[in-house]
Amino acid sequence: MMVNHGLNEIARVIAGAENFVIAGHIFPDIDALGSQLALGNILESLGKNVLLYSEAVVPKRYNFMPGSDRLITSTLEWDSFDCAIALDCGDRFRLGKEMDNFLRIQPLVVIDHHSGHQEFGDFRWVEGDRSSTGEMVFDLAQALNGSISYDTAYCLYAAIVSDTGSFKYSSTTAETFRVAKELLEKGVKPSDVAAKLFDNFTVNRLHLLMSVLDTMEFYEDGRISVIHVTLEMFSSTGANQGDIESFINYPRSLEAVKVAVFLKESDDGLVSASLRSKGAWCDVAEVAKRFGGGGHKHAAGFKKDSTISDVRDKLLPEISLMMKK
Amino acid sequence: MMVNHGLNEIARVIAGAENFVIAGHIFPDIDALGSQLALGNILESLGKNVLLYSEAVVPKRYNFMPGSDRLITSTLEWDSFDCAIALDCGDRFRLGKEMDNFLRIQPLVVIDHHSGHQEFGDFRWVEGDRSSTGEMVFDLAQALNGSISYDTAYCLYAAIVSDTGSFKYSSTTAETFRVAKELLEKGVKPSDVAAKLFDNFTVNRLHLLMSVLDTMEFYEDGRISVIHVTLEMFSSTGANQGDIESFINYPRSLEAVKVAVFLKESDDGLVSASLRSKGAWCDVAEVAKRFGGGGHKHAAGFKKDSTISDVRDKLLPEISLMMKK
Repeated sequence: MMVNHGLNEIARVIAGAENFVIAGHIFPDIDALGSQLALGNILESLGKNVLLYSEAVVPKRYNFMPGSDRLITSTLEWDSFDCAIALDCGDRFRLGKEMDNFLRIQPLVVIDHHSGHQEFGDFRWVEGDRSSTGEMVFDLAQALNGSISYDTAYCLYAAIVSDTGSFKYSSTTAETFRVAKELLEKGVKPSDVAAKLFDNFTVNRLHLLMSVLDTMEFYEDGRISVIHVTLEMFSSTGANQGDIESFINYPRSLEAVKVAVFLKESDDGLVSASLRSKGAWCDVAEVAKRFGGGGHKHAAGFKKDSTISDVRDKLLPEISLMMKK
Repeated sequence: MMVNHGLNEIARVIAGAENFVIAGHIFPDIDALGSQLALGNILESLGKNVLLYSEAVVPKRYNFMPGSDRLITSTLEWDSFDCAIALDCGDRFRLGKEMDNFLRIQPLVVIDHHSGHQEFGDFRWVEGDRSSTGEMVFDLAQALNGSISYDTAYCLYAAIVSDTGSFKYSSTTAETFRVAKELLEKGVKPSDVAAKLFDNFTVNRLHLLMSVLDTMEFYEDGRISVIHVTLEMFSSTGANQGDIESFINYPRSLEAVKVAVFLKESDDGLVSASLRSKGAWCDVAEVAKRFGGGGHKHAAGFKKDSTISDVRDKLLPEISLMMKK
């Protein structure tokens, strides 16, 4: 049984410290990055010293996030902090190569919304039914009586929009809209954020999308759809790995499709598989587990040292089996 | 100067009547239909008699809207009503062929959120900065002290989501999120609604999308993008007119594109043009006006008895001119 200290307890711990290091997870998404930037601002509004750590430089496509240039990627004086905060990390390994240094700082506060959260750190506030860590950081700001600037509100709003697919995913709740309302009252314009998150595509990405859609195959009377991307398709279109993020939504958006699969050749010689399911048709986390992966009922994945056609041939019978249960 | 009676005045008028006929606009969208179905339920919860009128049978793709089967398309006893309500109609002509019968009913109450609303009816509540008529109907329900069932909440939530592109358009405000929160508290699941609105596509539509994306052309250093669809493309893919609704978002979503154009061959022998612009680059309503059309700064259109290539050749110089201003 996980010990969940909750909002008030971690607010008390944070209020009592002065020198913070804050990290999101490695290969950050907008929720991890936005929560980190926002919490940095909030703690500074309370007179705290804050350092925002990142293992790698923030990808260029996230440069629109206000404050994204202030993340520190160099080696830190790890003993100069009296509180570390890990944001949006489902387990300790998501802290990356500095995990051990983080775990040594006393106290390590953990704030996360992943339903499969694997407990770590000294004080935890984990809510698996919240839409995003950004939504939780808003509540933390209120508990701390910290101020929420326009930039902070922008970061938190982007975090929520990104992690809910613009309020479409099942994690979207009345709480999500309560927080979104408050963030808009700080001046955030939804169309500004949407333009950055959803209308910033390149022609190369469009060409890659068209190539990938050309690979679409159907199985089980159209209930399973598979698309794939090869390294050759990346090089012939000039698109990059970040461009394929939402491609799985194309087979998924077909009414007849219950399970969508996206198979991707990676630079590391592995094939990665993304699985999506709708309704109660198939628990894709169970399917992914059989290939050493994991995830949620409706979104899961795995990596395999193999070829696209081999992964597809082994994967399809497992999905069919799971669908028939 | 338009006379805007406002929420309280129209609530007073509605409270005083017993037998209602309610209409949305012709060729209804989800906002018109959802507002109509919801307001019907709300007035019935107050013991009123309500008839929901529609010029044409509701398109099959809207069948998921609870109550969509109760719309009446036959001739009515127009003198049996003591109040008519027009929803989401930017002008009287949007009432369709029964316009004159509606205008004769005393009083005719008008509720609309179109910024270019052309005044008609006896009592008006028009707010051009609201996201949707659905958002306004929620406030009306509260002013009337009507009850909001799950079905009613579902209809209003779908109306808001549809008219804001899932909270992405600039019309999304703190008010929008306030209402969305209340609707979720009635049990609406955002992912259920999103699945119906956004994940209900056919394979034929996907094939048409791929054909249309293949037609993409760029002008003015990539700042103008044009796509088109021919009648032949419809017939060869088996897709239908309703399938192309969001295709303009593909060129629009490209970062470099400031003006997106979609040219469509129609059954009636005309070519229709949809124009979208981003930011302050180009007022496409002004462009559309020169071709006898109209719309908003960021979304406009027109129809012309011509060919796709002719419309494109005449349209591009006008856009270029407008962009340079």
